[in-house]
Amino acid sequence: MPNNRFVVGKEARKESAEDFVRGRARYVCDLGFPKMLVGKLLYTKHPFARIRRIDTSRAKAIPGVVTILTYEDIPGENSYLHIIPDQPLLCSDIVRYQGDAVACLAAETEEAAQAGLEAIDVEYEPLVGVFDPLKALEPGAPQIWPDRSNLLDKLVIESGDITSGFNEADVVIENTYQTQLVEHAFLETEEAIAVIDPLTGRIIIYTSSQWPYQDRLQIARALGVQQNMVQVIIPAVGGAFGGKVEAHVQIHAALLAHASGRPVKIVRTREESILTHVKRHPAIAYYKMGAKYNGKLTAVDVKLFLDTGPYANAGLGVFAAMGDTVSGPYNVPNARLESNLVMTNNPISGAMRGYGITQASFFYEAQMEALAYELKIDPVELRLINGLETGNKVPSGSVIREGLPMKACIREAAKQAGWNSRKNMERQPSPHLRRGMGIAATWHTVGLGRVMADHASATLEMGTDGSVVLKTGAVELGQGSHTALTQLAAEALGVPLSTVRVSGLDTDITPDAITTEASRQTYVSGHAVLRAAQPITDSLLTTAGEITGFPKETLSFHDGFLYREGERLNVTIPEVSAKTFERNRQLIATGFYALEYTGKYAEEDYIFNREVFIFSCDIATVLVDIETGEIKVEEIVSIHWPGTVVNPKAARGQVTGGTTMGFGYSTMEQLIVNNGHTENLTLDKYLIPTVNDIPRIKVGFIETPEPLGPMGANGLGEAPVNPVAPSIRNAVWDAIGVPINDLPLSPEKILEAIKKYND
Amino acid sequence: MPNNRFVVGKEARKESAEDFVRGRARYVCDLGFPKMLVGKLLYTKHPFARIRRIDTSRAKAIPGVVTILTYEDIPGENSYLHIIPDQPLLCSDIVRYQGDAVACLAAETEEAAQAGLEAIDVEYEPLVGVFDPLKALEPGAPQIWPDRSNLLDKLVIESGDITSGFNEADVVIENTYQTQLVEHAFLETEEAIAVIDPLTGRIIIYTSSQWPYQDRLQIARALGVQQNMVQVIIPAVGGAFGGKVEAHVQIHAALLAHASGRPVKIVRTREESILTHVKRHPAIAYYKMGAKYNGKLTAVDVKLFLDTGPYANAGLGVFAAMGDTVSGPYNVPNARLESNLVMTNNPISGAMRGYGITQASFFYEAQMEALAYELKIDPVELRLINGLETGNKVPSGSVIREGLPMKACIREAAKQAGWNSRKNMERQPSPHLRRGMGIAATWHTVGLGRVMADHASATLEMGTDGSVVLKTGAVELGQGSHTALTQLAAEALGVPLSTVRVSGLDTDITPDAITTEASRQTYVSGHAVLRAAQPITDSLLTTAGEITGFPKETLSFHDGFLYREGERLNVTIPEVSAKTFERNRQLIATGFYALEYTGKYAEEDYIFNREVFIFSCDIATVLVDIETGEIKVEEIVSIHWPGTVVNPKAARGQVTGGTTMGFGYSTMEQLIVNNGHTENLTLDKYLIPTVNDIPRIKVGFIETPEPLGPMGANGLGEAPVNPVAPSIRNAVWDAIGVPINDLPLSPEKILEAIKKYND
Repeated sequence: MPNNRFVVGKEARKESAEDFVRGRARYVCDLGFPKMLVGKLLYTKHPFARIRRIDTSRAKAIPGVVTILTYEDIPGENSYLHIIPDQPLLCSDIVRYQGDAVACLAAETEEAAQAGLEAIDVEYEPLVGVFDPLKALEPGAPQIWPDRSNLLDKLVIESGDITSGFNEADVVIENTYQTQLVEHAFLETEEAIAVIDPLTGRIIIYTSSQWPYQDRLQIARALGVQQNMVQVIIPAVGGAFGGKVEAHVQIHAALLAHASGRPVKIVRTREESILTHVKRHPAIAYYKMGAKYNGKLTAVDVKLFLDTGPYANAGLGVFAAMGDTVSGPYNVPNARLESNLVMTNNPISGAMRGYGITQASFFYEAQMEALAYELKIDPVELRLINGLETGNKVPSGSVIREGLPMKACIREAAKQAGWNSRKNMERQPSPHLRRGMGIAATWHTVGLGRVMADHASATLEMGTDGSVVLKTGAVELGQGSHTALTQLAAEALGVPLSTVRVSGLDTDITPDAITTEASRQTYVSGHAVLRAAQPITDSLLTTAGEITGFPKETLSFHDGFLYREGERLNVTIPEVSAKTFERNRQLIATGFYALEYTGKYAEEDYIFNREVFIFSCDIATVLVDIETGEIKVEEIVSIHWPGTVVNPKAARGQVTGGTTMGFGYSTMEQLIVNNGHTENLTLDKYLIPTVNDIPRIKVGFIETPEPLGPMGANGLGEAPVNPVAPSIRNAVWDAIGVPINDLPLSPEKILEAIKKYND
Repeated sequence: MPNNRFVVGKEARKESAEDFVRGRARYVCDLGFPKMLVGKLLYTKHPFARIRRIDTSRAKAIPGVVTILTYEDIPGENSYLHIIPDQPLLCSDIVRYQGDAVACLAAETEEAAQAGLEAIDVEYEPLVGVFDPLKALEPGAPQIWPDRSNLLDKLVIESGDITSGFNEADVVIENTYQTQLVEHAFLETEEAIAVIDPLTGRIIIYTSSQWPYQDRLQIARALGVQQNMVQVIIPAVGGAFGGKVEAHVQIHAALLAHASGRPVKIVRTREESILTHVKRHPAIAYYKMGAKYNGKLTAVDVKLFLDTGPYANAGLGVFAAMGDTVSGPYNVPNARLESNLVMTNNPISGAMRGYGITQASFFYEAQMEALAYELKIDPVELRLINGLETGNKVPSGSVIREGLPMKACIREAAKQAGWNSRKNMERQPSPHLRRGMGIAATWHTVGLGRVMADHASATLEMGTDGSVVLKTGAVELGQGSHTALTQLAAEALGVPLSTVRVSGLDTDITPDAITTEASRQTYVSGHAVLRAAQPITDSLLTTAGEITGFPKETLSFHDGFLYREGERLNVTIPEVSAKTFERNRQLIATGFYALEYTGKYAEEDYIFNREVFIFSCDIATVLVDIETGEIKVEEIVSIHWPGTVVNPKAARGQVTGGTTMGFGYSTMEQLIVNNGHTENLTLDKYLIPTVNDIPRIKVGFIETPEPLGPMGANGLGEAPVNPVAPSIRNAVWDAIGVPINDLPLSPEKILEAIKKYND
């Protein structure tokens, strides 16, 4: 076989790209069924209140209103969300944030549905809520739940001995940082259609989701039916970014379809979307760091407080990931990393691209910058001094199995950004403008952590003409995972990319790959695909050996042809596949892969160990207008370690998209919530970057293979978000001479900082 | 674990039974799509002719006609049918039987489609055809194909030495037998809807078929696309019986949808159905049999001539199966079995329940009866004397691995029919009525024969709640194979039957199980299901071992619970499955099974060896009206060996249905074809039994396990057809004293036989 790969590592066009670009892709909102009803939920808008009475009689009398459901009408369990399903589908006694639902209905028309909602009479007794995570932990604070502490969970990771670590330190830096509540702002709001199959009674859900099998589970639980009576189909998804990990309206659609016997469609308005769905956690970090004069870190002590709103959801994962990674991609001999997950009556926070590690990145890279200033060590140099190396053990107990890329990312970013010649940079191009450059080196992890189920199945089927169907439960969210998995399948089977078709996502068709988050699908489903390919390749090679008379071991397939020891034979895949079928050999297989943990962990080791790391480094160049406080980010050099790059086009797309998202997070995005009331519920008030705002992004990759990755591939998807905010923040500090410790870097904050500096 | 089975062997209700009975089942004709067109084919009606010119211009001008296709418009290959795809989809130069198509069209309405068909001008030059298989083989006979002999294929199976066999014989019986052309007469005619997915360009076909993956292959070939661009979905099927093995209108529907860009539905009328689709081969047998005075067979010499019409199709399989089995389930030391497959301009014959073995059964059991008369040996006794036993080698080279059921079937039938007290039977209950009793012992085979691909994949998926989805490409044709496979899955996994759901048949969902014919799916797909269950059970037991602390080897699952050495523990499948998922163990698997051949075959052994046999015995009691020639079949005792009976209800259904079909074949069914023109194209002219005609059927089973079958199960589906005609024919002989050697046993033939006897 030629040693070179013929698909993996080559530019591959996403099959559906043109449909998306030309507006032909069909989202849930584009689908319809005969006799379909309009479904809507009544969201309380009260941050915290007791329900005295729900009266639907007026609403039921409105012409066109077909079905109204309250908590009493749920056949199964009245709770949802994953990890701990503690949010009521329809509240019965207490509402705990503005997005809690108290009723849902289905009507013949949008107008009837709206009129119905308005005619549902709910009598509330408002309760005194709590809207600050630190206040929520004070004695006597209002309790969100009668039987649960406002401190939902607390994790402490300790390694080494911080007391002696700080004693050793020549300098100790201590700061408080804060990040804001932000919104995924996916283009497609949450939506679902539920249809009951009249023959089988099965419930078919079309929805926009990152976790179809979790949806299946939760819908089955709410309806009190077996999971195999529920089918979840995911058409085109218009962005997710973690915001579609939790079920949103699909369970309510199922309940309404079940009750009415008719198809029901629910599409959240933008206001409803922003009001209800989980956000990126706002977090506070008390960060103390000790180091020697030579720059070597001696100790890190961090206390984190995350406001998760009133329901647990992915917060339990996010706060662990934040705590896990808040010492940064650095060799920290002594650490105490405390993470507190606090409930309030604010919007729920949960999974969002970066999953807590984005906030952590801001904290440790702001802190590293402060240390560089304090020690007068070049910021790049300081990060190289402390950067993780192969074999280093991180505070959570995991061991770095490939450390080279950490420093390689930094060096490549410094090279591409011209870091060493930055003294020649024009720092004041005009009287009111100040230019600065800032670095951030970050890490990310792949997968869900050692205590979570983290596996995937994938099925490959080869036809007698050699064409292949790939069935994967990994959801194509726009990130290109279907293309990457198709490439791995083609490469493993030795068939041209064009002969592999990936099936649509449908729990009846595609095997479970758990959730499409945590940058895990290329890695985990990638392995499942390779494992599915093995028995098929074995079948084909046995047949090829029989046909040619050559020993099977000397044969392989490459780009549709049979090869013998590097030499192409005049035998094609379709010829061999047809004969393989005739000779009764398997041409279909399901591969299963569970993320492997090779480390030896002691009982006391922190259970959330992660072993697959992605390293990243951004260098941002900014221009600050000291009169208006506005920042123009001129360039971001963004270097990452995705291991083997499966599809360079998609990888660049991920970095560009993630960097843009990080840019919005850094400079403009913030959900304004006052006493639990969200004020900017539309995208003209909640600002995200437009194409005119986006900086020049220079993307680069370190392609050292990830030792255990599929064909050397690593994850990538979330990593690009992490270094953006700290690199811009550090560049602004470089430009204006004063650090800003909370996000976003709004003009007001910058002006205030400049004012403080000049005072 | 309790040793008793809790699902397999118990009455199980077919999931869809109520839908069928209540008329709720949705067939293809019940489905519709927006903008769907009506498709129709122009069948030539000429038995043999040259096409001079096809002019569609008048037809194209008819309002509502959207698309007309002729042979020039087929993007891929213009041929179909399996084994040898020699029938043109649309003929270009020659039509070879009345059912050949020359054009197809799609129109807005039924009326426009009909008007369009009538306006297609085809100019023919009639050719002199050949309509008798023996004449077709004469020198100078018209040739159906310029480059192929009318003798399409000839097979000779020789074992021992027939010359010495006949020399040893004390008696030699020689007769000529003939069977007629019959029709499947499924309730649902052939139909298909083709829809092009506007986004992907994929072709989705809804059709009624026994072999969805073969349809996929043929549609892909006709359209010139990859197989993975075609999806075949099988809704409810209204009977098939072999008549839906070959593609019928699904390729034409696909071509029309492809050309028009709109959904196209084609439903054959009953006339079109009878005119076009393959039938049961009419066959002629020259049968010579030698035996000792003690009844022992010494030699069999048979020459078979099958009229297969002008296209090969399954005829190549049918004539081999007929030749293979025409010596009957008897130990024949010397045999020469010659089978000739002849082309004519009559309707095509191909697969039909019994697949050539039905005709063979009539031949050898008529012959055995003649031998019994000749030797004055009791017919039951004669069959017991010669019946196959374990270890016997049959002429084709296969060895009987479980022979006991052969004679057990005969003994049980004799017992249930009261054979030994038949001398007390009232032979002349009134002056014009004569009663008789006849036996036939037959065999059948399971699977497609050693040279054909004969395998299946099946997928099992267990949810975290322990509910299971079974995905099988075996088609539910009414025979209950889905129920049987569900039972095997439930038994193997140890879960209640109600928790297993079988998915709909859809090539995008269900893995390939090849064709649902040859009584093979319980056996082959049954094994695939058991193999799919193995890794899942292994995962569950590993987890159960961890949970309980008991050694895995001592544990098993039974009816939803965990058992330890026969004792039920308080641990359920849902508990174990949820934990198994969390612990990263596989809960989905695809099993693959290929029919195994354990025999040692020499080069000269006949390649179609079959190793899995089903034995059957019918005893019929008839009352013949010697004035009208009418037969009343009073009772048929029908005993079979299905190995382990998976679902007694479905097994009885198969026997009752097959016996009824055999009853129609025996007494009334016959397609009248004169010089290639079929005369009885409707069910008021082609008579099949009504509920009033059907005899009392006493069903019995010999449940000796089939040694290599899944949980001991054997095939069953076709076997019940085989003994019906010879047992009725032998009973009529017993009643009227004269044998009739061709089917059906019509009043005319009976009167003629009585007349001849009395002359």
